[in-house]
Amino acid sequence: MSFQISIGPRVRKSPFYDATVKAGVSGFTIYNHMYMPVSYGAPEAEYDRLINGVSMWDVAAERQVELKGPDAFKLAQYLTPRNLSKFVVGQGKYVPICNHDGHVINDPICLKLAEDRYWLSIADSDILLWAQAVAGEKKFDVDVSEPDASPLAIQGPKAEQVVTDLFGAWPAKLNYFWFRRARLDGIPVLVARSGWSKQGGFEIYLLDASKGTALWNAVAKAGKKYNIGPGCPNYIERVESALFSYGADNAVDSTPYEVGLGKYVDLNQRAAFIGKAALKAAAEAGPKRRMVGLVLAGRALKPNEHPLPVYKGKRQIGMMGVVAFSPRLKKNVALAQISTSVPDDASDLTVETSSGVRKAQITQTPFI
Amino acid sequence: MSFQISIGPRVRKSPFYDATVKAGVSGFTIYNHMYMPVSYGAPEAEYDRLINGVSMWDVAAERQVELKGPDAFKLAQYLTPRNLSKFVVGQGKYVPICNHDGHVINDPICLKLAEDRYWLSIADSDILLWAQAVAGEKKFDVDVSEPDASPLAIQGPKAEQVVTDLFGAWPAKLNYFWFRRARLDGIPVLVARSGWSKQGGFEIYLLDASKGTALWNAVAKAGKKYNIGPGCPNYIERVESALFSYGADNAVDSTPYEVGLGKYVDLNQRAAFIGKAALKAAAEAGPKRRMVGLVLAGRALKPNEHPLPVYKGKRQIGMMGVVAFSPRLKKNVALAQISTSVPDDASDLTVETSSGVRKAQITQTPFI
Repeated sequence: MSFQISIGPRVRKSPFYDATVKAGVSGFTIYNHMYMPVSYGAPEAEYDRLINGVSMWDVAAERQVELKGPDAFKLAQYLTPRNLSKFVVGQGKYVPICNHDGHVINDPICLKLAEDRYWLSIADSDILLWAQAVAGEKKFDVDVSEPDASPLAIQGPKAEQVVTDLFGAWPAKLNYFWFRRARLDGIPVLVARSGWSKQGGFEIYLLDASKGTALWNAVAKAGKKYNIGPGCPNYIERVESALFSYGADNAVDSTPYEVGLGKYVDLNQRAAFIGKAALKAAAEAGPKRRMVGLVLAGRALKPNEHPLPVYKGKRQIGMMGVVAFSPRLKKNVALAQISTSVPDDASDLTVETSSGVRKAQITQTPFI
Repeated sequence: MSFQISIGPRVRKSPFYDATVKAGVSGFTIYNHMYMPVSYGAPEAEYDRLINGVSMWDVAAERQVELKGPDAFKLAQYLTPRNLSKFVVGQGKYVPICNHDGHVINDPICLKLAEDRYWLSIADSDILLWAQAVAGEKKFDVDVSEPDASPLAIQGPKAEQVVTDLFGAWPAKLNYFWFRRARLDGIPVLVARSGWSKQGGFEIYLLDASKGTALWNAVAKAGKKYNIGPGCPNYIERVESALFSYGADNAVDSTPYEVGLGKYVDLNQRAAFIGKAALKAAAEAGPKRRMVGLVLAGRALKPNEHPLPVYKGKRQIGMMGVVAFSPRLKKNVALAQISTSVPDDASDLTVETSSGVRKAQITQTPFI
């Protein structure tokens, strides 16, 4: 089935929108109330570019939430179960966010821009509102707003060469998630070693929305000799690499322990954070579900439209969020949340797909 | 330009999804993290059905946020500047929601199901998270969750006949926004006199997501003799009727006074509510912008993709959120937020559209 997406003023356009249209974008989703490219009509080439070359992605929909003011650090720490006591300026950290019941409601990267200034680079839920509500009710002395910052990702094994050609030697020396401000042909940017793939790469945060096409063109030009081309957060690669996708992989009531994010929760830190009591109770009770990789038998499956039920014998033991046929493994690889009562070597697992019932085997992740 | 929308597990499908596909849906948007139909490929017929007949819309994406428990009323009142002191069970009220700075962040209908139970029927922002954050920080004794409730709208002058045939005489006696629970062929529903048009109609809230197709078919069957057909929240009719669309018509920092919602703010009530201090200050200072209707000169304009700047002479005085060519008025009608310094009879207004600069005249709304 194929449907059109309406383009209208209610949903925002990315600063790179015009450039992506010129580059041949063919499909969009909506993410954080903004159009985000999901296809340029050549999935094999887009996958190949990411795995073997270099790809550029409009991920402006990865919106930023700025916390600024005397209580900015207090708020940042209060928002996440992760211990931020050793967080330094120039560093980024992956900071899952939970609600008061300990359920995951987003999984941003937090950038520390200054002692009193932080950006949360968010997945698709309104953390701007969440943080405003918390700051307002706690009467924290902090401004919570959306800055003019729109990431353009450069991903793939040749991303480092492109970024080096653009900025010089320093980006290649950044540690993972670290960042630095810079200018490119007069365009203000922030360069971070990050991105939603395991192929290596950078995100160039455009800091002047009026310069989207200029930045896109500068990156395309520098990348030309490496055969850079347009791409998107890649469905197949993210499953192969077992990258968590908020909204697809979790249930509304998943704790971090149930979706592979337990290692980011520090219950022993002195600082207060939202969900601490609930997460303590959850840790003591032990998780009921866990994230696993599955390999599904049989011919290549099409991407699933729905989450699909996973069975052990006749008993439903969980939900599979996503399945992709891996061109490298020549296998159907999937991520699922299943009952912790089911062991890794369980033998009679099946998934009910749109192409019939498929045998499934729990497998270590990442798949590659 | 026409682009595909990706259909995948990260975004939810409505309980009516399969039925809308069967009915020929051709376009979607994403609203509250759910696919929502926006076109069945025959805009003239869809408009005509709404204006002269009866139309049925999958508006399940108008998600519900349930407030339940001893402090449910306290929370409901705290969330909105509207005075809810005379709110009774069975009634619905339009309750704009502001943040602590007094900026509009949603404009739900609130349904009072019981003294300790309310539903907010929301526009496209995560009020579930907003209300959870507030309840959590206030330590209110209330559960904030999403109930199994998905509205199917029946709109148009013949909607009352369809609903009467389905349920009997009582729905026609409901006051505007009032509702009642019922069953239809064993399907649990709630019937409200409401809907996002000014053509009259009802919303049937499906209370069992597994019965979406059954409810759709029951309505289609009853509506057959009135020539019911599928439709969507109608872009043209909503402009003609000057219905507010959160996200399209407001800026991120619009107060209720600036978008025509000032009448719902009660600063004199005893109850506390979020944004009270900021709204008091805004009321004293007076609004800087106001919502107006504009008639744009010249040939029929296509729907705008972006908000567009409005000028008086050479000075930008505001933004036009939306323009539509009205088949009934044979005019381009638009909604804009402009500076309060510009009077109703301002003579040299223009809007920069994708079809060139158009003269504009401020006009009373609704247009029809």
